[in-house]
Amino acid sequence: MDDTVIRIGHGSGGRLTRELIHEIFSNRFGNIFLDNLSDSAIIPTSERNLAFTTDSYVIDPIFFPGGDIGKLAVCGTVNDLCVSGAMPKYMSAGFILEEGLPIDHLARIVESMASEAKKAGILIVTGDTKVVKRGQCDKIFINTSGIGYVHPDRVHISNGSSILPGDKIIISGSMGDHAIAILSARENLTLEEEILSDAASLNSLTEEILKVPSEIRFMRDITRGGLGTILAEVCEKKTFGIEINENDILVNRSVKAICELYGFDPLYLANEGKMLIIVQKTAAEKIVNELKKNSLGKNARIIGEITEKHQGRAVMKSIIGGKRIIDMLSGEMLPRIC
Amino acid sequence: MDDTVIRIGHGSGGRLTRELIHEIFSNRFGNIFLDNLSDSAIIPTSERNLAFTTDSYVIDPIFFPGGDIGKLAVCGTVNDLCVSGAMPKYMSAGFILEEGLPIDHLARIVESMASEAKKAGILIVTGDTKVVKRGQCDKIFINTSGIGYVHPDRVHISNGSSILPGDKIIISGSMGDHAIAILSARENLTLEEEILSDAASLNSLTEEILKVPSEIRFMRDITRGGLGTILAEVCEKKTFGIEINENDILVNRSVKAICELYGFDPLYLANEGKMLIIVQKTAAEKIVNELKKNSLGKNARIIGEITEKHQGRAVMKSIIGGKRIIDMLSGEMLPRIC
Repeated sequence: MDDTVIRIGHGSGGRLTRELIHEIFSNRFGNIFLDNLSDSAIIPTSERNLAFTTDSYVIDPIFFPGGDIGKLAVCGTVNDLCVSGAMPKYMSAGFILEEGLPIDHLARIVESMASEAKKAGILIVTGDTKVVKRGQCDKIFINTSGIGYVHPDRVHISNGSSILPGDKIIISGSMGDHAIAILSARENLTLEEEILSDAASLNSLTEEILKVPSEIRFMRDITRGGLGTILAEVCEKKTFGIEINENDILVNRSVKAICELYGFDPLYLANEGKMLIIVQKTAAEKIVNELKKNSLGKNARIIGEITEKHQGRAVMKSIIGGKRIIDMLSGEMLPRIC
Repeated sequence: MDDTVIRIGHGSGGRLTRELIHEIFSNRFGNIFLDNLSDSAIIPTSERNLAFTTDSYVIDPIFFPGGDIGKLAVCGTVNDLCVSGAMPKYMSAGFILEEGLPIDHLARIVESMASEAKKAGILIVTGDTKVVKRGQCDKIFINTSGIGYVHPDRVHISNGSSILPGDKIIISGSMGDHAIAILSARENLTLEEEILSDAASLNSLTEEILKVPSEIRFMRDITRGGLGTILAEVCEKKTFGIEINENDILVNRSVKAICELYGFDPLYLANEGKMLIIVQKTAAEKIVNELKKNSLGKNARIIGEITEKHQGRAVMKSIIGGKRIIDMLSGEMLPRIC
């Protein structure tokens, strides 16, 4: 393995991505906002806190069951903002287009962005378009950056600084649908039940649960790197651990089947419309009930808790009773998943 | 010419880009911020106005005389903000990397971004990294989005709504250095005098001239599409015209020579550290003198004025006395110039 060049795993969202950020970016750009390593920078201003986030989308194929690169580019940015406790307000759209891209494909993608932005209540206020020659990019890449406002009481939500042993861990639905929908489109798989990407803007969900009088400690959308990577990150170098039950993690039947076939672990599959919530123990049931009222959270469930045991580690109790340490994703199972 | 697909000219910053924005983006994303067509969206908030801008950088080669893609990605975003009358504050950095990119190239680029950001006083607060397989992008593409604050008195500067006949037109220096530096690097040209890209953050310049008690009507950094495209845009569908003197436009000797050789028009060449300023007649000399105090503006000069004649058109008096209408750039002379 050549350590001097960029490898596919550097874009996985897992361990290699973390190392690249640490070794190349953080020490050079280093400032308190970036060091936080959360999805959005939370910038305290004299009036109110600004949340600011960016993501590039390079997904292949650009149209897939349940969505397209445009929908994804809006949902991804909306979700990065709303899981930070922010109200998504404004976004940018930067396009890199390959010469020869059919203009009606571009129009469909833009249409899809506009429709998702309207649904999520975010305004696309600024944009940019670049074109490169055939073979210098793959059809279309999109960058979206987003701005939101965060109430001062919610600033801890993006960094998890208030997490305590005893807190419950909730996920809002099944794992892996987005990744497997992309794989099935890419490989032309014929499945018994078609799997649709779960791509969705989660701000309706976060707004509802933030209204519940309770202590939400942390939220994160479960994307690249999957549930496993987030759990490992949350307790890394902390004085608490995590324990989850495999039995409580919903994985749809077709997703499970493909995972077995390809040797994938659903814990590390990307989602684009699912979130993890860590909440004060006493409020957990209330939050799950609230999530279930929304179709995006209808399969929400408690999957485990923050523990005093396993300091700095996430541990999963398997269905047959064993225990396994959950590490960050290393390498990359499915490149260009978002 | 196939009208159903994206062509290189759609990324030129000239007429085709305008048409694409109009036909594909504006009517779908349509809102008051985007319709403005300026480089930054100016968002009025209850406390202060937010300026928000985005740009993707796909320049080839990634290292060139006078800079690299990283420096450019910072300068470009700083400049979009400061010519809107905004104080640049925070920016994002989204990277799309090609598998196999040497990590030390990435490190040099990131170093260069960090150094330029420090110089310009802007903080890089959030980022994203994606990796695509060999051949799916060309080495590295960077998107930067930026946030700044705009004083309510300066909101008109980005949209030119206060331009009046009699106003003077100033440019801050010579035209075309960036484009020709890129071309010479790309084609390995040996020039009598090496041409360096003019890539620079202009906020020190804009801050100084905004302190001069005067009426600055409009500012714009002169990038893709060149001076010609901006002039044509400024008076498009307006009740005023523009008249400039070819004689007053500085083009360095080597740039002129290459233009003759390649058949380029310096009016349409990209710059990355030059700006156009439209100012109340009585303040023009004062502004030029202020610009000249800063090394980035040492060759500033008045090149013409806003006229009641030539309604909706920009006209150039040539050195030998003729007049020529300046249209927007159509097609593309040099793709991937930024």
